[in-house]
Amino acid sequence: MVAYEKIKKIPYGGDYNPEQWPEETWEEDMRILKLAHIDTVTLNVFSWASLQSDDDVYHFEKLDKIIDLVTAHGMKICLATSTGAHPAWMARKHPDILRVEHNGMKRKFGGRHNSCPNSPTYRKYAPALAAKLAERYKKYDNIVAWHISNEYGGECYCENCEKKFREWLKEKYKTIDEVNRVWDTAFWGHTFYDFEDVVLPNLLSEHMDDTRSCFQGISLDYKRFNSESILNAYRLEYDAIHAITPDIPITTNLMGTFFGLDYQMWGKYMDFISWDNYPANDTPISSTALRHDLMRGLKQGKPFALMEQTPSVQNWQPFNMLKRPGVMRLWSYQAIAHGADTVLFFQMKRSVGACEKYHGAVIDHAGHENTRVFREVTALGAELEKLGSQTLGARSDAKAAIVFDWDNWWAISYSSGPSIYLDYCREVEQYYKALFDRNIPVDMIGVEDDLSRYDLVIAPMLYMVKTGYDEKIRAYVKEGGRFLTTCFSGYVDEHDLVTIGGYPGKLRDILGIWVEEEDALPENLHNRFHYHGNTYPASLLCDLLHTEGAETLASYEEDFYAGMPVLTKNAFGKGFGYYVATQSSDEFYRDYLEEICEEADIQPIMDTPDGVEVTRRINQNGVFVFLLNHREEPYVTALPFAGEDLLGGKIYKAGDALVLEKKDVAIIKLK
Amino acid sequence: MVAYEKIKKIPYGGDYNPEQWPEETWEEDMRILKLAHIDTVTLNVFSWASLQSDDDVYHFEKLDKIIDLVTAHGMKICLATSTGAHPAWMARKHPDILRVEHNGMKRKFGGRHNSCPNSPTYRKYAPALAAKLAERYKKYDNIVAWHISNEYGGECYCENCEKKFREWLKEKYKTIDEVNRVWDTAFWGHTFYDFEDVVLPNLLSEHMDDTRSCFQGISLDYKRFNSESILNAYRLEYDAIHAITPDIPITTNLMGTFFGLDYQMWGKYMDFISWDNYPANDTPISSTALRHDLMRGLKQGKPFALMEQTPSVQNWQPFNMLKRPGVMRLWSYQAIAHGADTVLFFQMKRSVGACEKYHGAVIDHAGHENTRVFREVTALGAELEKLGSQTLGARSDAKAAIVFDWDNWWAISYSSGPSIYLDYCREVEQYYKALFDRNIPVDMIGVEDDLSRYDLVIAPMLYMVKTGYDEKIRAYVKEGGRFLTTCFSGYVDEHDLVTIGGYPGKLRDILGIWVEEEDALPENLHNRFHYHGNTYPASLLCDLLHTEGAETLASYEEDFYAGMPVLTKNAFGKGFGYYVATQSSDEFYRDYLEEICEEADIQPIMDTPDGVEVTRRINQNGVFVFLLNHREEPYVTALPFAGEDLLGGKIYKAGDALVLEKKDVAIIKLK
Amino acid sequence: MVAYEKIKKIPYGGDYNPEQWPEETWEEDMRILKLAHIDTVTLNVFSWASLQSDDDVYHFEKLDKIIDLVTAHGMKICLATSTGAHPAWMARKHPDILRVEHNGMKRKFGGRHNSCPNSPTYRKYAPALAAKLAERYKKYDNIVAWHISNEYGGECYCENCEKKFREWLKEKYKTIDEVNRVWDTAFWGHTFYDFEDVVLPNLLSEHMDDTRSCFQGISLDYKRFNSESILNAYRLEYDAIHAITPDIPITTNLMGTFFGLDYQMWGKYMDFISWDNYPANDTPISSTALRHDLMRGLKQGKPFALMEQTPSVQNWQPFNMLKRPGVMRLWSYQAIAHGADTVLFFQMKRSVGACEKYHGAVIDHAGHENTRVFREVTALGAELEKLGSQTLGARSDAKAAIVFDWDNWWAISYSSGPSIYLDYCREVEQYYKALFDRNIPVDMIGVEDDLSRYDLVIAPMLYMVKTGYDEKIRAYVKEGGRFLTTCFSGYVDEHDLVTIGGYPGKLRDILGIWVEEEDALPENLHNRFHYHGNTYPASLLCDLLHTEGAETLASYEEDFYAGMPVLTKNAFGKGFGYYVATQSSDEFYRDYLEEICEEADIQPIMDTPDGVEVTRRINQNGVFVFLLNHREEPYVTALPFAGEDLLGGKIYKAGDALVLEKKDVAIIKLK
Repeated sequence: MVAYEKIKKIPYGGDYNPEQWPEETWEEDMRILKLAHIDTVTLNVFSWASLQSDDDVYHFEKLDKIIDLVTAHGMKICLATSTGAHPAWMARKHPDILRVEHNGMKRKFGGRHNSCPNSPTYRKYAPALAAKLAERYKKYDNIVAWHISNEYGGECYCENCEKKFREWLKEKYKTIDEVNRVWDTAFWGHTFYDFEDVVLPNLLSEHMDDTRSCFQGISLDYKRFNSESILNAYRLEYDAIHAITPDIPITTNLMGTFFGLDYQMWGKYMDFISWDNYPANDTPISSTALRHDLMRGLKQGKPFALMEQTPSVQNWQPFNMLKRPGVMRLWSYQAIAHGADTVLFFQMKRSVGACEKYHGAVIDHAGHENTRVFREVTALGAELEKLGSQTLGARSDAKAAIVFDWDNWWAISYSSGPSIYLDYCREVEQYYKALFDRNIPVDMIGVEDDLSRYDLVIAPMLYMVKTGYDEKIRAYVKEGGRFLTTCFSGYVDEHDLVTIGGYPGKLRDILGIWVEEEDALPENLHNRFHYHGNTYPASLLCDLLHTEGAETLASYEEDFYAGMPVLTKNAFGKGFGYYVATQSSDEFYRDYLEEICEEADIQPIMDTPDGVEVTRRINQNGVFVFLLNHREEPYVTALPFAGEDLLGGKIYKAGDALVLEKKDVAIIKLK
Repeated sequence: MVAYEKIKKIPYGGDYNPEQWPEETWEEDMRILKLAHIDTVTLNVFSWASLQSDDDVYHFEKLDKIIDLVTAHGMKICLATSTGAHPAWMARKHPDILRVEHNGMKRKFGGRHNSCPNSPTYRKYAPALAAKLAERYKKYDNIVAWHISNEYGGECYCENCEKKFREWLKEKYKTIDEVNRVWDTAFWGHTFYDFEDVVLPNLLSEHMDDTRSCFQGISLDYKRFNSESILNAYRLEYDAIHAITPDIPITTNLMGTFFGLDYQMWGKYMDFISWDNYPANDTPISSTALRHDLMRGLKQGKPFALMEQTPSVQNWQPFNMLKRPGVMRLWSYQAIAHGADTVLFFQMKRSVGACEKYHGAVIDHAGHENTRVFREVTALGAELEKLGSQTLGARSDAKAAIVFDWDNWWAISYSSGPSIYLDYCREVEQYYKALFDRNIPVDMIGVEDDLSRYDLVIAPMLYMVKTGYDEKIRAYVKEGGRFLTTCFSGYVDEHDLVTIGGYPGKLRDILGIWVEEEDALPENLHNRFHYHGNTYPASLLCDLLHTEGAETLASYEEDFYAGMPVLTKNAFGKGFGYYVATQSSDEFYRDYLEEICEEADIQPIMDTPDGVEVTRRINQNGVFVFLLNHREEPYVTALPFAGEDLLGGKIYKAGDALVLEKKDVAIIKLK
Repeated sequence: MVAYEKIKKIPYGGDYNPEQWPEETWEEDMRILKLAHIDTVTLNVFSWASLQSDDDVYHFEKLDKIIDLVTAHGMKICLATSTGAHPAWMARKHPDILRVEHNGMKRKFGGRHNSCPNSPTYRKYAPALAAKLAERYKKYDNIVAWHISNEYGGECYCENCEKKFREWLKEKYKTIDEVNRVWDTAFWGHTFYDFEDVVLPNLLSEHMDDTRSCFQGISLDYKRFNSESILNAYRLEYDAIHAITPDIPITTNLMGTFFGLDYQMWGKYMDFISWDNYPANDTPISSTALRHDLMRGLKQGKPFALMEQTPSVQNWQPFNMLKRPGVMRLWSYQAIAHGADTVLFFQMKRSVGACEKYHGAVIDHAGHENTRVFREVTALGAELEKLGSQTLGARSDAKAAIVFDWDNWWAISYSSGPSIYLDYCREVEQYYKALFDRNIPVDMIGVEDDLSRYDLVIAPMLYMVKTGYDEKIRAYVKEGGRFLTTCFSGYVDEHDLVTIGGYPGKLRDILGIWVEEEDALPENLHNRFHYHGNTYPASLLCDLLHTEGAETLASYEEDFYAGMPVLTKNAFGKGFGYYVATQSSDEFYRDYLEEICEEADIQPIMDTPDGVEVTRRINQNGVFVFLLNHREEPYVTALPFAGEDLLGGKIYKAGDALVLEKKDVAIIKLK
């Protein structure tokens, strides 16, 4: 986490780019930011070009001034390394730094996220700059974190990456025979005799589009290779900095459910997680919550930094609605409620040019403090100051977990059949939402994470069961755990090679079933089933399965497989394996997970209507219950526990009426 | 046809790829396949890379074993040449084998259908491999057919193809002046002075997208050139094999209405036609029937091979529904009913990796025989064994023909105006369906085929009338034939050059009309006409025509051309020329073609409700009527003729009740 | 304008390409064209390849014959330079003439608009050909105009253009520091140290698609550079011709609201404006009218040439409906009603090949004169002959103007945020239509045009206020002018750099408002407001504004900004600044502009129902009121003024009944 012992409250501020403005305006910025109780600024995010004008020519004078300026005003600094976009001169002089696109075209200078991760030039100059920055500014004790590059992403298909991919394969698989085996190259006669025969999978080789590939195994390995290549570039900077300032934590800003990078692997190499939360205009609140929990899970529940959010509007949505009054505050607290220990914005001040000039900022183009947005920012700043350090470091105590795995996501996305409508994230969100709506805390975990602390583990569409993961699940269930999975699970190993013998492969004994066939339905067609007095739809994919020890809880009612099981429950050791053989409705997931949670004695924090979110965080200072009213009307309840509202200041006895105005928040520190 | 004198029944089996599996599993495969009455396997479809590891290094040991294995188990072999995908090493060592895409990008190794047809490397090594295979395996007398490459298709725009295109043009047109004439290059100043000035028409030259071209004539000639280039590559293999095993028939698997290749030209160079039947989830049964008839027509009615179909699901549709119980059998018999003499599947066994692993197979990933799909395959196998050789070689006796011409399809697709909604295949299908629904046998014929055996010839949207084809039609009608064509007919010659003097050009005298204008309507706008008490819509394209001798049967009722003819009939010699000046509804086509068939004394085989298909095949053993119940309910009728059901075994007198359960089939051998 | 003193009537004819046909057909063409009263033909549009067969080899013999032919038949000639498409041999021999696409691919020979404007080859040979043509044909006194190239457009991203772009930047901005400033390159670290670092903005550098760019400033400058590059190529030909035939006016055919070229800059270098009017099947008549007015405005109201329109159908629309009877005549007069002094068609004769063979023509593929279209063309020809020279040179006397600015269009299209649904042309059309529906004459003016002659100036979505333009507006309003603008106005200067201090920037004092925020609404969401008893929707973009002196005429009724102003009016000097803070409905624009026009004493020419268009032109011969009945039913009115119908010949007293049949036209010369 941000070194918040230096700040002793929730850091408040965000990206500040005075280098885009005349120096004579900086003091006025300071005056305004101080008004808003800003105490932390992220500096130097995109200045590589101005910091380095030639191979060995660096210019730190302006950055010196900026750092001195904010330091003089008592602010903490999150110092970026500026390597998110390389200088134009570097692209011209060292074109190896430019990427090649999925369509095979070599790029020219432009944009950001533009460096080939395997470029020798990039791998030389990016860490060199990071080291110079660390060396130069290590003396500033108000630097609370390092911020490497920015929103890493993208892919490269250049010749250099192709060479590195071959090396990566050789390192991983040792022999070309093993490569042939794991990619099943006997199919379509793709047998390789030499690593040199391997080419990158793109539109010129194995791909028909972004996700349709002739060889899923090749595409999957490229995805891993690319994620690791970029991670390695990050790590070069990390190592350079860490050697000089070992006590300042290092991060880079992630982006939630970002398809391109395996954030679970990345998390291992970050001192703390930070991420940029930009819900679209119509993103459900449960989806935002899921992403907060997913980011928190990358470091096993350690609090994270909300590195970016907009004070008001975005600029890249098709239409960019204003955040309504109160929403910026509400969503800031939603982040905290899910484990954030910072509230940071992109951006302090709107630029006058280029593609983000209409993205919201604390200081608008009007240039002064007399705006609605500024008043809301200021009010939140004052409130956070008052809140102080109480919640810092607090963690969740979830007894339910949902498994999310990037490799699995990639593999499902690449699958040719049974349906292009398979959507891993949507599938996960459906289960998450069912628990979210019941105010049941959830941890989003990866396949390397420990299961034993949970009473319920849900792994929606666990298509890929990596070597050993079935063992982990088996041990967990044997010891009394509850494990639920769904259709399209257990098909393949980590190479996307099918586990022979019957689906769901290595999960069959745990679930006590055999899936013989799966029927992919068009969007307008549904089967259905009855369960506990209700009828639910069966959509998208309907497994035709046989129990092998499991109990059948519900069966299909239509089509030629009417009567075959759709919900099963298998006693296995001291625990249970649950199987949901199709996709159903929000109502089904809510009802069914409520039942399973009751069986597992997993209790909601409290009962609230839809749109009133409740979470809990715990630290050495106590237990904090967050209540967030996302609705358009007030919420009134009898509080089921005693405590003090850290925001409103009111003291409640159990049973006292609590009133939350629309968009309002309460943080009840339990008695 | 497959050398079925060697097998004396309908060959049953399909693609088997043991090279994808450990040898120790092969015997178990044999056991299972034998259980299913599989007697014929297609081997070696994609093994070029494993058969040839360097310019002069070949490895046949594994293929030897495979061939010995299936031979030892008494199976017949359809032996493929493996040239549907070249080896990776070859692409690296001889990059001329790689294609250039429509967008101008040179491909790298990957996918299949990946060889440039004019590549010297490809044209050297593909027939070399074919010859080696023929030489090595000629001693096996259970090889019933050769299967060259696989599902040929695609295009190449490389420099080598460009050179060959110039040579092709020189061969075809002799002078550059003639090229200028047939391409009408005076338009937009495209006059060429030298063949070297000609470039291939793609996104970098004449094309805006796949079908929008600045010069239809150039694009049309490229399409022909490409189809012929690939055909020539096929013929190199054909010749190499035929020289060694002159008695084994040779084929390649076609794909129905495949836009890219002129299958009517291809048919001339194939010993028998084989094709892969993969209806989408929502393909009408008449569309499948049409494609069977089209493939049968490629060799003037000679029985064809159903080379591939799926036992259960496909993997490349957006969603892949299961074939419902009975459907695999029903569709297998539909193929036979339309002239197939084989029932072959892709595939015997599902692969564990790559992009077709979720395509259905006889042996599923479960690895055993205890599946619904396997039981259905086995039942059909037993039934075909019982059916024996009776229907082999039987032919249709259609008196109605529908003209289908690839050049015409291309030209309509490329036409700029009058409407992008012109769809040649849909237009043909509408007429086909009208006859299909009435159980009137149809031959799908090309423009080189004889017309004299038919009482009715329908040529929907015969936009292109090649030199001499009007003469053939004229002679046919003069002798008493009935010829029907439609709007957007007779416009151009084989170069897509308009026939001056008034549409429908060279067909004017036969039809007795002059089409002055055509009004292209948006999708939601219709004119209409009355005919025999009914009102029908006029859509898509409405000709404004004048009769020149023809009788007006119906006229438009709306818009400024109300009262102008929309249906005409012209007495010409002893026959009639019919013209349908617009697109109408299924009801219209059914009613109108029923009337014309009555006039021509063309009788349905029998009357059945929608969804009950009836066809007839005739050979030296007798006359076979196929009844196929595609409906979801049983079909009961009084059989109008006497005979024996070769499947159920029941003997019927004329008038006896016949009951067909849903999805059931009867093959009545007439008494 | 066309040198119509040589012709003394409205020139009638259009593109004629006899070079596409055998010479023996030419005389018959002449016979038919003369029947139709054709008196003017455009020749030589696409003959570069036939005119020049090698670097120094020219062939004018055929063109000589053609010119002699039409001269002998008494026709006037609009002589084209043929440089709209270069010869194939030239592309092969001098590939610098080929363009590079937005995706970075180098083109091959093909299409038209295919020359790189900065190609040395093109810039050498195109003016050379123009000069040769001028020299050779200067003796023909029936050449009434030069027509350079054809429908200029497109872009090039080749290395040569890149070099020229750098030179252009250096010329414009002098220093790289100034480039950095105007492009705000401090954003995302794009600082340039050398002009050599600059690359063209396309899909390989700054663009995500055609209009989404990382740096709007770069893209905007490229757009200008490209428009100027093509203009410079035009000017090379202009200068070559003008030096030889200074008395023959020179034009090129424009295309209305064509995004690619800044026609307002182009207009300065054209002797008269000509344009090609191709409304789509569903184009509203007001949209066509707007484009006529826009083209007229390019030379400050000087009459223009209708250079192309189709006699019947187009070929490039998705579906190409026939122009209904009377519509060709009606739309021809619509052009004249808006300032055209010619009626010219593309084309005299349909080609037999290539992509425009199904585009309408005076001589159809039938090859004779007995067609509906020909009869309509002939009737109009006779009528125009009768009309003579009376209306030639007549001008509009509009008191209302609408500002249209290409730079502003580009900048709005490139803007990232607040909404991708911003559509400058649609916004302008809404205001135009409100005046059009009321028969209030409008001038479409550019930002360099004089404002003082207008009583009302409307500048919808004037996002970009170029340096000095606020001063011009300020002076205009101070002197009593009425100026109306809308949401998303006043944000940026000519570099797309935001004007700091509050929107609408430099227009704030004139409008007396400050726009604090703007809320971008999805398509299905609306706010609303009451005004003068009606309720109107507020859509797309809702400004949250504060008055600073302006009067609030109406306020929002919903959402958290209910009560904030949506319509304001600011007394400023002797005039008024009006602001419309959102997008509303046709009804609103009609009602509100009617009110403002009444305030400004701007009178409709006369009141007519929807679909009956009225315009006015004035010259030394008198005042001409055009009445055009676009409806499907007759229009009857009491004519409010006395005059003579120049078409029908009838004389009217004020108050006499005038009957216009559907699609009919009257030109009343006022008494």
